[in-house]
Amino acid sequence: MVFEVQKLKNGDVKMILRLGHAELFVTDLQKSREFYVDVLGFIEVGFEAGSLYLRGADEFDKCTLILKENTYTALGHFGFRVSTPEYLEELKRKHAELGIKSEFVKESAHLGQGSSLRVTTPSGHPVEFYHHMDQLNLYDQGGHVTALPMRAANQRGIPPLSIDHVNLRVTNVEQAIEYWSKLDFSISEYVEQSDGSKFAVWMRRKTSTHDLAIVKSDRNSCHHIAYRVEGIAAVVKTADLLADAGYRDSIEYGPGRHGVTNAFFLYIRDPDGHRMELYTSDYNRDLDQPPIRWSKDAYDKHGRLWWGSVVPERFFESSSLNNDWVK
Amino acid sequence: MVFEVQKLKNGDVKMILRLGHAELFVTDLQKSREFYVDVLGFIEVGFEAGSLYLRGADEFDKCTLILKENTYTALGHFGFRVSTPEYLEELKRKHAELGIKSEFVKESAHLGQGSSLRVTTPSGHPVEFYHHMDQLNLYDQGGHVTALPMRAANQRGIPPLSIDHVNLRVTNVEQAIEYWSKLDFSISEYVEQSDGSKFAVWMRRKTSTHDLAIVKSDRNSCHHIAYRVEGIAAVVKTADLLADAGYRDSIEYGPGRHGVTNAFFLYIRDPDGHRMELYTSDYNRDLDQPPIRWSKDAYDKHGRLWWGSVVPERFFESSSLNNDWVK
Amino acid sequence: MVFEVQKLKNGDVKMILRLGHAELFVTDLQKSREFYVDVLGFIEVGFEAGSLYLRGADEFDKCTLILKENTYTALGHFGFRVSTPEYLEELKRKHAELGIKSEFVKESAHLGQGSSLRVTTPSGHPVEFYHHMDQLNLYDQGGHVTALPMRAANQRGIPPLSIDHVNLRVTNVEQAIEYWSKLDFSISEYVEQSDGSKFAVWMRRKTSTHDLAIVKSDRNSCHHIAYRVEGIAAVVKTADLLADAGYRDSIEYGPGRHGVTNAFFLYIRDPDGHRMELYTSDYNRDLDQPPIRWSKDAYDKHGRLWWGSVVPERFFESSSLNNDWVK
Amino acid sequence: MVFEVQKLKNGDVKMILRLGHAELFVTDLQKSREFYVDVLGFIEVGFEAGSLYLRGADEFDKCTLILKENTYTALGHFGFRVSTPEYLEELKRKHAELGIKSEFVKESAHLGQGSSLRVTTPSGHPVEFYHHMDQLNLYDQGGHVTALPMRAANQRGIPPLSIDHVNLRVTNVEQAIEYWSKLDFSISEYVEQSDGSKFAVWMRRKTSTHDLAIVKSDRNSCHHIAYRVEGIAAVVKTADLLADAGYRDSIEYGPGRHGVTNAFFLYIRDPDGHRMELYTSDYNRDLDQPPIRWSKDAYDKHGRLWWGSVVPERFFESSSLNNDWVK
Repeated sequence: MVFEVQKLKNGDVKMILRLGHAELFVTDLQKSREFYVDVLGFIEVGFEAGSLYLRGADEFDKCTLILKENTYTALGHFGFRVSTPEYLEELKRKHAELGIKSEFVKESAHLGQGSSLRVTTPSGHPVEFYHHMDQLNLYDQGGHVTALPMRAANQRGIPPLSIDHVNLRVTNVEQAIEYWSKLDFSISEYVEQSDGSKFAVWMRRKTSTHDLAIVKSDRNSCHHIAYRVEGIAAVVKTADLLADAGYRDSIEYGPGRHGVTNAFFLYIRDPDGHRMELYTSDYNRDLDQPPIRWSKDAYDKHGRLWWGSVVPERFFESSSLNNDWVK
Repeated sequence: MVFEVQKLKNGDVKMILRLGHAELFVTDLQKSREFYVDVLGFIEVGFEAGSLYLRGADEFDKCTLILKENTYTALGHFGFRVSTPEYLEELKRKHAELGIKSEFVKESAHLGQGSSLRVTTPSGHPVEFYHHMDQLNLYDQGGHVTALPMRAANQRGIPPLSIDHVNLRVTNVEQAIEYWSKLDFSISEYVEQSDGSKFAVWMRRKTSTHDLAIVKSDRNSCHHIAYRVEGIAAVVKTADLLADAGYRDSIEYGPGRHGVTNAFFLYIRDPDGHRMELYTSDYNRDLDQPPIRWSKDAYDKHGRLWWGSVVPERFFESSSLNNDWVK
Repeated sequence: MVFEVQKLKNGDVKMILRLGHAELFVTDLQKSREFYVDVLGFIEVGFEAGSLYLRGADEFDKCTLILKENTYTALGHFGFRVSTPEYLEELKRKHAELGIKSEFVKESAHLGQGSSLRVTTPSGHPVEFYHHMDQLNLYDQGGHVTALPMRAANQRGIPPLSIDHVNLRVTNVEQAIEYWSKLDFSISEYVEQSDGSKFAVWMRRKTSTHDLAIVKSDRNSCHHIAYRVEGIAAVVKTADLLADAGYRDSIEYGPGRHGVTNAFFLYIRDPDGHRMELYTSDYNRDLDQPPIRWSKDAYDKHGRLWWGSVVPERFFESSSLNNDWVK
Repeated sequence: MVFEVQKLKNGDVKMILRLGHAELFVTDLQKSREFYVDVLGFIEVGFEAGSLYLRGADEFDKCTLILKENTYTALGHFGFRVSTPEYLEELKRKHAELGIKSEFVKESAHLGQGSSLRVTTPSGHPVEFYHHMDQLNLYDQGGHVTALPMRAANQRGIPPLSIDHVNLRVTNVEQAIEYWSKLDFSISEYVEQSDGSKFAVWMRRKTSTHDLAIVKSDRNSCHHIAYRVEGIAAVVKTADLLADAGYRDSIEYGPGRHGVTNAFFLYIRDPDGHRMELYTSDYNRDLDQPPIRWSKDAYDKHGRLWWGSVVPERFFESSSLNNDWVK
């Protein structure tokens, strides 16, 4: 018997897999390209209809970051990849049960992406669920594997490796936990206030510490998008590259070490003020394990920062949201 | 409303999660301790009934490597963690359907582990499925988070970080693929011979390249167990530590780069001849993506080794199996 | 002819070679040992007469840091190694010409060191010149090379590798430049104020950026002692180790990048408040090359910090000097 | 008083400072440029009269590697920078005393270089001594320091950082030691045969382990030129870049660790077969310290290789010399 590999069902359980991409509204694409492509080393994979499509150096997905030119700055949306096309239908039903309007977009709305389900979460965040994303071609004309995306010769700049998480600010943390829990997100760590209410949670579908961080604030907004980089030296190289290229003011905070997640980080601001975290060395843990609990007091002392310098005021700014997402 | 985090179901889908531990039969525990603990930096977590229990520096699981003193050397078994206790029952039924004998072990057979289901696979490999494994205590007496396992102060030696995969040799690759596919393992890469039959496959339940490598051979056996380390410098440090400590002959092959998986590796041999791979920089990819195909010819040219020196003869030795696993 | 290597004159030009050691007065040796040895990974090489003798992991010299218990904290002194014993005589004459009192100490005053010449510089800094320092034994009983000091197996903690420079604060920068220039120190970089006077200079006898930094202040004192570490990851590991071990307040400033010297740094404070810089990635340049000039304005903008967070107030504290050095 | 920095004599002792550049004869400059510039990341600084001028990313010197197109391959020559122009005269006298013909070249023979003294050593190696080499401009039009050469934004490929040493093969090791010793080179390590004669020596004017390695062979020739890179990861990245770019056969040997020098290395071959070593983590030691002695037996066991795979046959090839150097 000769087994046909292409017939194998590769993990066909219906589920949300991971954060897959994010879209930012920017006001000057040329400035954005200089920042993201020329300095940081994002790989440009397409440009159409006023959007610049980018990916990191480790990604098989064709595109993970969309910069869309607009008259205002905002988080356009972020998207989760799901394991099967059928699961989009189930998510539509699930949202209907929750009384949340969703919109099924049959046509590809972005380069390389298949049909998607769009929702505005209870906290007002614009989210997309999708299954299909074009994959890099790994073969030459003879059908032989040529080069995996992460090969050294494909790397420039930092390089950013892969999209990791979004950090959201919400006015109602409990409501947000409830919503994402219903989509089977697991909590890795959380911060509890003295009255038992939650101040912040880190939630995930992949096994690393989070796809989503949710932190209490007075405005529903987006704090940052994070890309994974290769170790501590690459986080530091980000600051070196920015300072060398005249973007010293774009280095906002860090490098330092978080207590929650154990990650080593640097926060930077793009020409429109969008914040990006360059991120490394968090951990993997099975989704069924009980979350790690921090008291608000311990979080303020050592959780936000295991060590690091004083947090500057502007770190507490956050980006507005695209409010036209689902009508 | 105050949400009770402990009541949240953290990802309760029934599935195999990942390779969780391995057991090796060794003939001199004192020599093994010097090698694994004193030189390589494995953390000793217990010693009872003639077995030494170890873990890597990044692991929340209490134990991932068991060295059991015996009169002969062999792979004792390897174990997969599953997402819920109930899934063990389902796996028992599934094996009955496949005509494979399984044994349910109610009592903890190893330090920190709960009940398990034991099987001998069609290729004769001794495997265990289990849900419960004691987790490290992360809190001090006041209930505050103290130190995550991966904090720098906990690291010695290389250090080895976490168990990654086992590499099996089998006489019938197609049969092995069929077995593991029925347990929902996804293929990341495979090598196809000119007649369409498979020479090797890399299969996984976690999103990195493999929990199991399966390679054609003339004997059902175990080639190596792999631990993940922190980047290229840590792979190289392994060889430095071994040479400095008088274990120069334990460095068998590498460092080099695999084409399949993109991993950077070093292979070493313990005092009993068991082979361990120190491993870094493979990739993550969703389980539903189609596997990467290598022809046997391309694999021989660039797949086994993207680059590296000539493979020494003794690299093709493999360890025998514990044949008394399930009676 | 068989050449006798031991008869070769190895570079017998008379000159000061490099900063060789420093001595700090500390008030509690047990606390100091925990900090320097247990946490940072300095190698303890001796303890006698109330002094703890340490070295870094890359050093052939037996000792480069002396912690002497005393009733007050101060910089005890720092010492320069010279190329020949005869040069100490020449230095004695040179100081006499400069009208500076010097004291020749025939007996070894510190573990492993030969005779030395002691002076108090015009800025009041206690300095020692010496030729002999015991070297590590590199051979086994059979006369075979065993292990160089820098071998991986000898490394713990960060590890600190080798003493690099001292940073002095002086009230009269021009006078200090004149003094050290007469001892053939070369300037690698300097900061000039708008009136042409010097604000700071980096001077050296070795080819890296400095053995001495001299910065204008209102008090003659010592700002910090610097040890070289292995790259960016080791600088960051210093902060991780300190935070993990409960010394979070000992992390004073950084990590960040200097403009002058290009070095990547972290500043820490020992239990007595002595400041140490962990330091990497400055450059080498021939001593005859013209120094790099920074205007005070450019230095304030980008020279002190190529990038980094706001400097905390306490960074401007500096240690007092041992004023009893040469009577 | 305002001190004039430009008047300071920066270390005006007369001496040879270090290996400063090397010239290779190549047969196809376009192929050489692809290899050295496009793949490895050497910085191209000029092209004139059939020569390509390169430097590494950490160098203030305008040029350290010259690739000269010729009809045959050979080591063109290598050059040592001396501390003062006057020392060239002294070297001329010294060579006359030794009965070695030398040629004073008043005009700049290479891009950026001043006048030089050329000799053919007793072993027939073509060597140049020179003082002046153009330095990179570090200032903008306003006289402000802009960017040091080693800033991250200037780095591509590996990158190679700075020229480190040449490894020569000679038929008469004792004679070569005698010659270089008369030029005040210090021996860091040597290998002694059972009859007391020398098999190999590592000699230097800078404080790291060598500017020159001299190894016994049956032909006076050049084995390799070495460039320093940033740590272990950069050595490994060299092999990754070459394999990714289709130069897999250019990876000759390594990575591995030398016992002598403690260096971590990779040997590669350029399109003409010239061998280059990428090199990191040797040590610094004062020039007056006694050399480290290896018996030939210990060298064969652990000195050549502290650890590493079997040395391939072609590693023992060496390049011919330019025999027309001094007529």
